[in-house]
Amino acid sequence: MPVGRSGGGAATTRGLALDMIRAARTISRVELAAGLGLTSPAITRIVRDLLVEGLVRETGRGPSTGGKPRTLLQINPTSRYGVGVHLERNTCVIVVADLAGQPVCRAVLPGAAHMPPERMLPRLADEIHALLAGTGVNKAAVVGLGLVTYGPQDWRSGVLLTPQPNPQWLDYPVAERMAELVRLPVLLDNDANAAAIGEYWLGTVDLTSTYGCIYLGTGTGIGGGVVVAGEVYRGSSANAVEIGHISIDVDGAPCTCGNTGCLERSAGPEAVVRQAWTTSNLARRLGLDPKGRDPQGGDFLVDFSKITTAASSGDPIARSLVERSARYLGGAAVTLTNLFDLDFIVLAGPGFGSAASIYQSIIQSEVDRRWFSRRAHPVRVVPSANGSDAAAIGGAVLILQRELVRPQAASSADRTTPMV
Amino acid sequence: MPVGRSGGGAATTRGLALDMIRAARTISRVELAAGLGLTSPAITRIVRDLLVEGLVRETGRGPSTGGKPRTLLQINPTSRYGVGVHLERNTCVIVVADLAGQPVCRAVLPGAAHMPPERMLPRLADEIHALLAGTGVNKAAVVGLGLVTYGPQDWRSGVLLTPQPNPQWLDYPVAERMAELVRLPVLLDNDANAAAIGEYWLGTVDLTSTYGCIYLGTGTGIGGGVVVAGEVYRGSSANAVEIGHISIDVDGAPCTCGNTGCLERSAGPEAVVRQAWTTSNLARRLGLDPKGRDPQGGDFLVDFSKITTAASSGDPIARSLVERSARYLGGAAVTLTNLFDLDFIVLAGPGFGSAASIYQSIIQSEVDRRWFSRRAHPVRVVPSANGSDAAAIGGAVLILQRELVRPQAASSADRTTPMV
Repeated sequence: MPVGRSGGGAATTRGLALDMIRAARTISRVELAAGLGLTSPAITRIVRDLLVEGLVRETGRGPSTGGKPRTLLQINPTSRYGVGVHLERNTCVIVVADLAGQPVCRAVLPGAAHMPPERMLPRLADEIHALLAGTGVNKAAVVGLGLVTYGPQDWRSGVLLTPQPNPQWLDYPVAERMAELVRLPVLLDNDANAAAIGEYWLGTVDLTSTYGCIYLGTGTGIGGGVVVAGEVYRGSSANAVEIGHISIDVDGAPCTCGNTGCLERSAGPEAVVRQAWTTSNLARRLGLDPKGRDPQGGDFLVDFSKITTAASSGDPIARSLVERSARYLGGAAVTLTNLFDLDFIVLAGPGFGSAASIYQSIIQSEVDRRWFSRRAHPVRVVPSANGSDAAAIGGAVLILQRELVRPQAASSADRTTPMV
Repeated sequence: MPVGRSGGGAATTRGLALDMIRAARTISRVELAAGLGLTSPAITRIVRDLLVEGLVRETGRGPSTGGKPRTLLQINPTSRYGVGVHLERNTCVIVVADLAGQPVCRAVLPGAAHMPPERMLPRLADEIHALLAGTGVNKAAVVGLGLVTYGPQDWRSGVLLTPQPNPQWLDYPVAERMAELVRLPVLLDNDANAAAIGEYWLGTVDLTSTYGCIYLGTGTGIGGGVVVAGEVYRGSSANAVEIGHISIDVDGAPCTCGNTGCLERSAGPEAVVRQAWTTSNLARRLGLDPKGRDPQGGDFLVDFSKITTAASSGDPIARSLVERSARYLGGAAVTLTNLFDLDFIVLAGPGFGSAASIYQSIIQSEVDRRWFSRRAHPVRVVPSANGSDAAAIGGAVLILQRELVRPQAASSADRTTPMV
């Protein structure tokens, strides 16, 4: 009997088999039976069903171990698709990813900074319909939509508990309304969780690994996600791993969250840009412009990119600002590792941009030097395999995983007519 | 098929049934089948086996829902026992707990501050044999021993990766040697994990809760543990939730662990006592004595108890020291909750002692004020149900759980002849 973790769906045996075939790329029935601890007849039945549903296909033969050569199984990537949407204040990225997690098409809309959900969601639905219509994707093969945005969230009901992207979104039934518009199951999650599971699904992560993700977006926020044995760590209400609100200074400035000395006040793109603005020589030299900014926290990525590009090119002032941000993030990575005991940490999101290698090397060195249990095993710090679309791709992966590997009890937003 | 989490054993269906009967106190077969999602014949078979093994017994009849009254099941507490040992520098507590987690006997030995494992472990084994011989516990009913001490640890091989209780213990095969001496399966774990799972096993915690434990011992250390749906969160190598080494001050003093500004440098019993020593009026008034202390970090509990007793009696200076420590712990509780999304936090260990109510109320207020997702649900801060023996009782519970609910692959320390 599967053991469901708090806040997550329980994996079915069929789902675990599919996940193992996906992760292995190619695998024989014998290896699959051994990996899952199942009998040969049980595996034969499960694989037959997966073949009939078209999720899996047979592909050539592997080396024999004495008897006849073994037929290998692999996932059929074009059999199912997931839509992933990463909705932010400044931008909204839509991807359609296949069953292997690979994006097959992509669109970008302006963000929702000044738009209420009643206007934004229909616009988004139209764009998704147009995107699907313009590609070769069979609409009946789309299993659902993963909508990735700000937290905290009421994960089960698909409602935001934060006044972001703007206060009109607070308490609005985002997932339910979106499900009505696209006629697909919809789940709501946050950027770092999505980026974390995307890393797993694309096949670069071992099935038993425990790892974390640090997500640096375009504005103030710094997100975190942890994946344990192929599943996002959820905790009580799926609002876990809020690393942007780790207090790094017990006597620090108050944060809007109620805490003091929060990481994202010192280390995020907004914090770096604001420091650069007050460094007059740097601001002038790089053409940074504090004027006309959205006071609610707009897109700092343009100025942040100028700073990280200058840092990477050797500008010592720019470099010292980025290095300070990286050391703070390194400290948070140490806390994350001290609490979750991670095998590795993925750096994801557009915020790392052109300074990814500076961030990677400083965070790695902080973890090497400061992690409590470093005698037990090393912790690697690695860039995301999914680039700056990691959160949107992860949204697609989350819905593929929920619909095919870890089905859950129906929620109000879930059970709508499939889109055909 | 059960899904094993990283670093932990997978629960068997039989184990889950036993755990559900234990948690429910009394339960019918019908309720058990519904709770586990199993068919009636499957439950009948599993319960028959549990009855034959004596782990469970029938007890009276519950209310009928139309048909014949339902026979109720309950755990048979005296059918199995676990030995728990909490080994510290200053003291070593041994308990024997029954299958319900209730301690049935207890012994205390001097700690291992100045004793090598070659001398301490045989002494401990002799004491355990004497304790079992002096009680009515049937030795064949003892499933094993949970040895609880300092981390980091190599959990799988049962070896300490820390020079505590003293450097002679570093890299010594503690679990294997102890298993030879007591002829029982032995597992090694840390104080906060043990205290956390003890809270679950004693029946006060819901099967699906996610909760944390903050453990305050007698010296420097501050431990943490998290339990998700009845299982200790392990991470990659079972060295998770080291909250004593959360950095609360990015520019703080270096810690022996390599990190800076670690919580336990400012908030633990040792930190409070050292602050009191330098507050001359207070030190004189309470009769605190820094002389003759073990410079390696000895037992600060005597002086710490004087301070917490004075604080509880209204001494303003003592109270301000304790309150400062509580606010720092409150900040760590916020980080723990922001990262693990907890339903509640248990305060365990002798360090909370007579100031438990001060700590509880300040930590609660810090969490209420500063937790990021407080719109999603409240987080309660509660004292441990297991008093100052929480870690030792938890050691007994950990081995009961591993042997009966979540059996694991054999390790070198595990498979010895049962003690009869």
